[in-house]
Amino acid sequence: MVDGRLAEAGARIRDHLRESVPPSGVAEADLLGEAVAYASEGGKAVRGALVLESCAICGVDAGAALKAASAIEAIHAYSLVHDDLPAMDDDDMRRGRPTLHRAYGEALAILAGDALQSLAFDRLAAITEAPPERVLALVGALARDAGPRGMVEGQWLDMRAESHPLPESAPMEDRLRRIEDIQSRKTGALLRWSCEAGPILGGQDPAPFRAYADAVGLAFQVRDDLLDVEGSAEETGKAVGKDAAAGKATFVGLLGVDGARAKAGALLDEALAALDPFGPSADFLRELARFIVTRDR
Amino acid sequence: MVDGRLAEAGARIRDHLRESVPPSGVAEADLLGEAVAYASEGGKAVRGALVLESCAICGVDAGAALKAASAIEAIHAYSLVHDDLPAMDDDDMRRGRPTLHRAYGEALAILAGDALQSLAFDRLAAITEAPPERVLALVGALARDAGPRGMVEGQWLDMRAESHPLPESAPMEDRLRRIEDIQSRKTGALLRWSCEAGPILGGQDPAPFRAYADAVGLAFQVRDDLLDVEGSAEETGKAVGKDAAAGKATFVGLLGVDGARAKAGALLDEALAALDPFGPSADFLRELARFIVTRDR
Repeated sequence: MVDGRLAEAGARIRDHLRESVPPSGVAEADLLGEAVAYASEGGKAVRGALVLESCAICGVDAGAALKAASAIEAIHAYSLVHDDLPAMDDDDMRRGRPTLHRAYGEALAILAGDALQSLAFDRLAAITEAPPERVLALVGALARDAGPRGMVEGQWLDMRAESHPLPESAPMEDRLRRIEDIQSRKTGALLRWSCEAGPILGGQDPAPFRAYADAVGLAFQVRDDLLDVEGSAEETGKAVGKDAAAGKATFVGLLGVDGARAKAGALLDEALAALDPFGPSADFLRELARFIVTRDR
Repeated sequence: MVDGRLAEAGARIRDHLRESVPPSGVAEADLLGEAVAYASEGGKAVRGALVLESCAICGVDAGAALKAASAIEAIHAYSLVHDDLPAMDDDDMRRGRPTLHRAYGEALAILAGDALQSLAFDRLAAITEAPPERVLALVGALARDAGPRGMVEGQWLDMRAESHPLPESAPMEDRLRRIEDIQSRKTGALLRWSCEAGPILGGQDPAPFRAYADAVGLAFQVRDDLLDVEGSAEETGKAVGKDAAAGKATFVGLLGVDGARAKAGALLDEALAALDPFGPSADFLRELARFIVTRDR
């Protein structure tokens, strides 16, 4: 059921993003539009689905929710396109297809990523179905969570950690704190934003949503680390064991496979506990948390 | 006088941007903050000054104006950093110093550019001194003017025009329209936004500001083309004759030096005529238009 609902959310978001880029008046610009569309395709749309669900729970208009969900998926897509570049992680495959710079060249990948970031804020500014002061608060939160003290910082710290690893003699808690610091910025901030979009637009208390998001975000990373050593390239659609081969500090490296699995389980319990105030309306968020901890790709 | 006021605006904007990036909780992230600051330094701040002036004419709060001015300079700085990358224009010098990727490496240049784009929207969302629906309209305008059908499209068309030039046998008006299409997107859209920031935040008619911006924007490009063949590397702080050497279509190439100078003069007249409804409050905008058409860097 989770898979089906994610696929449905992903398709709606992809269509919305495609319709949001008007045709160019200049024929030569079509390739840029194509590259933007290519980058928006094929993802799991977990972040977008979190936006749609948190909005539904908080009684936010469905049109506003779709625009906010499209915004976060545009930010996510841009970050993947730029992270894959040769000067960054230098990845050839993403979502089971050639990365954008392999398919369209590096210049167009840089530009399409830049365009996707603008497009995210364009989609938020287009929300007319909620009070402007709430929409503006959501714009500010996205700018902060994606920016120089959010996702971009996380990506930078992640790259630095690879080239400047903590010595193996460093205390376990320092090494764990470091990967949690990186995770909370690199992926955690945007997952939190996705879960807060509902309460911010709906004018409700974001605290339980934030607690859910933080637990799920960390669980997501733990599961990613487990997949990195467990999965096959066919299942995950990307090269396997790459992080381990690069000597990156991972939860699995620090806690072992069993320790990482136990941690993922504890985080799942935390995420579910945060949803206690809500009734059946939060059932999909509960399933999504379970899905994230057990997913095989 | 223009130089002094631009320098003052530039310094205030630079300081505001630096203060807007809070210290990181993680020491390794300092380098990212440094790179962001480096990219924000040394420009002429023409766009920021246009925002400050259009806001002053429209009675917008000075604090709101400074945030909007900082937003556009952050967007401009990000666009220069990414345009200079090896996969794009591959420039080594900018504003008389090594380009960001030459000084800090390519990965940090990509990330600092991305961070600057987020920072721009962060600064707009921080405007509490104007009604939220107007601030949100300004966010939407910036996202559109910077995005896949604005500045990014202009940059892409500019690169394509270099590798796929129109044949020399193409009618002059087609070739002129093509460089005007590129200019209106690549630099014109953000100059227009800068001039519209005042009327949008102040709730006034943007039409005269838009007419002024369109004339000044085109004049700016004509002057840039003239500088490309006239200037010395010392005066402009970048390599000279590069566009001409790359076989790029330019106003000078199509109209000749005298024709380009005549066009710049006619555009200056247009810009000044657009300011007729305003009294002495628009004097600095008048001087700025004259400055843009006569500047030697």
